[in-house]
Amino acid sequence: MSSHREHTRSDYLFFLSYRTRWIDNDQYSHVNNSVYYHLFDSIVNTFLIQRCGLTSDSAQIGLVVSSHCQFFSPLSFPQVLDLGLRVAKLGSSSVTYEVAVFEEGNDVPAAVGGYTHVFVDRGSRKSTPMTEPLREGLSSLLSTNERLESRL
Amino acid sequence: MSSHREHTRSDYLFFLSYRTRWIDNDQYSHVNNSVYYHLFDSIVNTFLIQRCGLTSDSAQIGLVVSSHCQFFSPLSFPQVLDLGLRVAKLGSSSVTYEVAVFEEGNDVPAAVGGYTHVFVDRGSRKSTPMTEPLREGLSSLLSTNERLESRL
Amino acid sequence: MSSHREHTRSDYLFFLSYRTRWIDNDQYSHVNNSVYYHLFDSIVNTFLIQRCGLTSDSAQIGLVVSSHCQFFSPLSFPQVLDLGLRVAKLGSSSVTYEVAVFEEGNDVPAAVGGYTHVFVDRGSRKSTPMTEPLREGLSSLLSTNERLESRL
Amino acid sequence: MSSHREHTRSDYLFFLSYRTRWIDNDQYSHVNNSVYYHLFDSIVNTFLIQRCGLTSDSAQIGLVVSSHCQFFSPLSFPQVLDLGLRVAKLGSSSVTYEVAVFEEGNDVPAAVGGYTHVFVDRGSRKSTPMTEPLREGLSSLLSTNERLESRL
Repeated sequence: MSSHREHTRSDYLFFLSYRTRWIDNDQYSHVNNSVYYHLFDSIVNTFLIQRCGLTSDSAQIGLVVSSHCQFFSPLSFPQVLDLGLRVAKLGSSSVTYEVAVFEEGNDVPAAVGGYTHVFVDRGSRKSTPMTEPLREGLSSLLSTNERLESRL
Repeated sequence: MSSHREHTRSDYLFFLSYRTRWIDNDQYSHVNNSVYYHLFDSIVNTFLIQRCGLTSDSAQIGLVVSSHCQFFSPLSFPQVLDLGLRVAKLGSSSVTYEVAVFEEGNDVPAAVGGYTHVFVDRGSRKSTPMTEPLREGLSSLLSTNERLESRL
Repeated sequence: MSSHREHTRSDYLFFLSYRTRWIDNDQYSHVNNSVYYHLFDSIVNTFLIQRCGLTSDSAQIGLVVSSHCQFFSPLSFPQVLDLGLRVAKLGSSSVTYEVAVFEEGNDVPAAVGGYTHVFVDRGSRKSTPMTEPLREGLSSLLSTNERLESRL
Repeated sequence: MSSHREHTRSDYLFFLSYRTRWIDNDQYSHVNNSVYYHLFDSIVNTFLIQRCGLTSDSAQIGLVVSSHCQFFSPLSFPQVLDLGLRVAKLGSSSVTYEVAVFEEGNDVPAAVGGYTHVFVDRGSRKSTPMTEPLREGLSSLLSTNERLESRL
């Protein structure tokens, strides 16, 4: 995964800016590693709500089955962070997101990570093929190469 | 404190917008009461850093001695929130902030609260009169009436 | 409220211990003021679940309408904290909790605060008289004097 | 990494129990994925402080360069969680921790993850060989097999 360090903004397809919070800094005065996962959740769920029709009582919800992050350079409150999102892999009932965290005005990410969502029925929590609005929305975040592959 | 509900944006003098995060919502699907205090800390410390010369190794730091909040209407991820800050009371070594939380585009606050900072020496943690840059910056957040009173 | 500083463990009726977390410390290396409200929420809701029959789909839920805290002495990760809970005021559809935070082995609180819950219907979010199990459970946290007063 | 699911308590060498907090549950009423990383940080730093001589002004601090987690079964407030820690890999200036999260009374982990710390000079933030107390303490968390390998 070391190539993630070479990613730039142009590798991502949906962006949101997040203001850091005072509590994000731990006692080493840098944004704590766990805070990046709060931000991953935030950009992913905002996309699902705004572009894929997810609502607070959707029949289908996404559960995180694994997550990871690589940290390249420290960030610190009160910086504003730009997050970029793309879909790295799209299955029938699961999706793997990749998120890059950029310091404002910097084209090289400070951190790159992501997680895999398995879509399940809200009640039974059993995995089900994702709905068409989900699939369509998430497909738009696949880069061209990945879109071709996912068709094969 | 019930009059806080009648406050509007024009009562505040420094503003920042914060994107809510997925984890801000608790299991009742609304921004949890404790998250407002994260936001108070964030706007206050951003002001201290950007307008009052506070740095990560300033000789003087602000310790919170009491805090409070009133909640008027619920907020929810992924709303963007506008925070307004003013100084309610300025002493020689302490300051009481008031912060209002507005839903984007709404002039009536969803919550109003604040806290009192006592400025102390970073090493000894004993209270000391605030430095001139702190006093000047914080004075600019007093409303006209309060500025007159604080001169008396 | 300054008398809160003189409270001791014997003023509280339900206790839980919480291990602090690394992220609780802010960059001044002390437990951040907002974290106390996370802990208030935790002891209150644990009591409601374990002693008052609250479940994840109860018809009635408690919404926080105001909260406050006074901070007397700093705490720091990795300390273990003892929280004490009592009911300061019990109405027909609302309750005011008081929570004291003690360093392990210390009888004098490091902080005392609390909040007011208004019980509402989960669906309509309109306030309703609290259910009998809630009233019974919460009554058990009133001190003797307050129990007498609440009967009058 | 799928074999992590088969780990049991006996694979870990240092344990701490953590009470979940109300805010740990997200709006799906389960402990949010990012909270596990708060807990990883907490058990690791408690070990470093209690067993390896780390203090709040140690010359050497650990920076997280990568982290990951796999989630096998959901957890929920107000459960109490048992965390188990072991060292998966020990280098000269870096260490990779593995942490398992158990529901109280359950021998099968609900989640397994970890992260890699690089030890750096607090001032320059350049990596340096770990101090002897750090190495000794961390060595005690290597399983027998790994201890043999790390000698070779």
